[in-house]
Amino acid sequence: MLSKEMIKLGTARSVIREIAAYGAQRAQIVGPENVLDFSLGNPSVPAPKEVQEAIKDIVDSKEPKEYHGYTASNGAPGTRKAIADNLNKRYGTNYTGDNVFMTCGAAASFNIVMKSIIANPGDEVIVMAPYFPEYKPWIEAHGGKMVLIPAPEDFQIDLAGVEAAITNKTRGIIVNTPNNPSGVVYTKENLVKLSEILDKKSKEIGEPIYMVTDEPYRELVYTDAEVPHMPNLYKDTIVCYSWSKSLSLPGERIGYVLVPTECADFEELYPAIGGAARILGYVCAPHLFQQVVERCIDVEPDLDAYIKNRDLLYNGLVEMGYNVAKPEGAFYMFVQAPNKDATEFCKLLQKEDVLCVPGDGFGCSDYLRISYCVDTEKVEKALPAFKKAMEACK
Amino acid sequence: MLSKEMIKLGTARSVIREIAAYGAQRAQIVGPENVLDFSLGNPSVPAPKEVQEAIKDIVDSKEPKEYHGYTASNGAPGTRKAIADNLNKRYGTNYTGDNVFMTCGAAASFNIVMKSIIANPGDEVIVMAPYFPEYKPWIEAHGGKMVLIPAPEDFQIDLAGVEAAITNKTRGIIVNTPNNPSGVVYTKENLVKLSEILDKKSKEIGEPIYMVTDEPYRELVYTDAEVPHMPNLYKDTIVCYSWSKSLSLPGERIGYVLVPTECADFEELYPAIGGAARILGYVCAPHLFQQVVERCIDVEPDLDAYIKNRDLLYNGLVEMGYNVAKPEGAFYMFVQAPNKDATEFCKLLQKEDVLCVPGDGFGCSDYLRISYCVDTEKVEKALPAFKKAMEACK
Repeated sequence: MLSKEMIKLGTARSVIREIAAYGAQRAQIVGPENVLDFSLGNPSVPAPKEVQEAIKDIVDSKEPKEYHGYTASNGAPGTRKAIADNLNKRYGTNYTGDNVFMTCGAAASFNIVMKSIIANPGDEVIVMAPYFPEYKPWIEAHGGKMVLIPAPEDFQIDLAGVEAAITNKTRGIIVNTPNNPSGVVYTKENLVKLSEILDKKSKEIGEPIYMVTDEPYRELVYTDAEVPHMPNLYKDTIVCYSWSKSLSLPGERIGYVLVPTECADFEELYPAIGGAARILGYVCAPHLFQQVVERCIDVEPDLDAYIKNRDLLYNGLVEMGYNVAKPEGAFYMFVQAPNKDATEFCKLLQKEDVLCVPGDGFGCSDYLRISYCVDTEKVEKALPAFKKAMEACK
Repeated sequence: MLSKEMIKLGTARSVIREIAAYGAQRAQIVGPENVLDFSLGNPSVPAPKEVQEAIKDIVDSKEPKEYHGYTASNGAPGTRKAIADNLNKRYGTNYTGDNVFMTCGAAASFNIVMKSIIANPGDEVIVMAPYFPEYKPWIEAHGGKMVLIPAPEDFQIDLAGVEAAITNKTRGIIVNTPNNPSGVVYTKENLVKLSEILDKKSKEIGEPIYMVTDEPYRELVYTDAEVPHMPNLYKDTIVCYSWSKSLSLPGERIGYVLVPTECADFEELYPAIGGAARILGYVCAPHLFQQVVERCIDVEPDLDAYIKNRDLLYNGLVEMGYNVAKPEGAFYMFVQAPNKDATEFCKLLQKEDVLCVPGDGFGCSDYLRISYCVDTEKVEKALPAFKKAMEACK
């Protein structure tokens, strides 16, 4: 007798896993250079040299206990202060280290926040399609119910849809911009309007509706699109951040939760974050990397390769007649299948050894996600396959 | 409206936290060298030089993507194989990497296992006092109920107590040897008898009772006491391991779960472990440290300082007339308060700037825990205070 739910989660057919397995198998036959795998969000840009320098300098200059020991459960004071200072400098805020709780990456941040704000079974958390598929199990894991707003055509925010979905059970709404899987950056105008709706509805239901921002792609923006710091627009915002993408450290599991002092029930919320981290077994965030991100807090990601890939792919696909949500950030592109059936269309691409993820899991079954965090050469090699697949649908 | 349970967990009065705060405050007044803090399990022996060498060599010789990228959720194949090979060599087993699931440390391992084996709310997990206090919230977090067996006088195993506690709701029993907080190593004889009881009762109730071993102190043994590899004695054993203590890496959060193929329902259990890791937001174990422990798999901990501290403290306290559970491993000593009230007795010690943790939380209110993973000088300085406090009770 085991937890049926865990067995189900662990054995669930995973499209991405199957694609990865297929890719590995094909690589043995045609060579890895000929498998054009656009399925994963593993950054292709290496971690910046400052990261390696920081690691070596810490190891060379400090006693092991100073960087391998436990930190307090909310993180090393110096790291938390550096994050607060950096945010203050960029966004004109007044944070201190006491607003920051270090975590084992964005997934940990998200789970800890859900565990804190979901007060009763059946409490609702709003998610806007297209969305990162793990949100659903992560909300449900803590007794919550995901309320999904279907994607509007431009993959911006369906403001009326959100407003209509709010009930007196609504505890939070997830905002992920730049967006995975679309790469779309929500406009400031839309975010202001969303904030106004949340503000109005919070008053109506008599409980704060927390905006939970999932921001691993915050610094990955390729146009002059602004990514507002949401606490400046809506006070009841909790920020989940990770350096997985901005410093290309996805395997190191390092991130934070930011709880502004102005946030509703701050005096209970920050400790609840600590309680949730404790009960989920997150003792502390990896210590060496707490010190590494502290030293690299001002390092900006090198976006050149992603911009090059985005331009090549976007221009190429639009020219072929594809309907593409214009990506301004992250390293994903969300493309409509010409036959309106992304699962079938991905099979056509797969015949050409181009691997993409059909959009069902992201809430849009006629779209496919292309992760273009790959070598540019692979984008170049993939374009003829996209052309061929498009023609096969005509 | 927030989760009341999380607020409670996050704001709960924590004796250890209060001691730490008091210690920090005293350090400012009397100087850190005069605060004799025996409250924490932060190893005093630094991580071995092989760890620093491994870190630098990986950073110098590999591409960042090769050690900072995501691994599969169950960990890097090379690391899992190295662990299996090491266990096979030491214990005559036949594991492969497919028996190993890498985790963010022992707390993560424990939570993931509880989430997997607790099938229904109210399922029971047996814990034997004295015990690590976090077991209780971690079992309850996943709907389980902790069934506590009071400590026998020698802090070994109350076999009759365990047998009487097993019901048809018993899903598992936690075995932590060398033990935190007592430092006692369970005898092989007792573990064999425990296995026989579990075997008999599993058949009676018609469901496997998993033995979940929490083994961060496995290598920290100071006598010729044997720490048997429990799957060799009881097939339905799940091992939770961490390098926090053996390689002095508590802040890096790196460990594993071992699920032997012979374990009941292996084909469902291993995937359930993956499902639990996924739903708790553990994406993968920190990658750089997966590679570090792989390279350091055969490094043995330097126990000299702990042995010296143990001997100094144990002999000193016994000579003064203290009743001490003889510690053979870990770096804890469990000492009876001469006045049988450890909370009060710790206050007497605190007056002398000696900080220990009263045993209520560990399930024994007349005992206190001394963590002797400190500089030997502090043990020497503390002995007169123990003498004075003992005399104050006469």
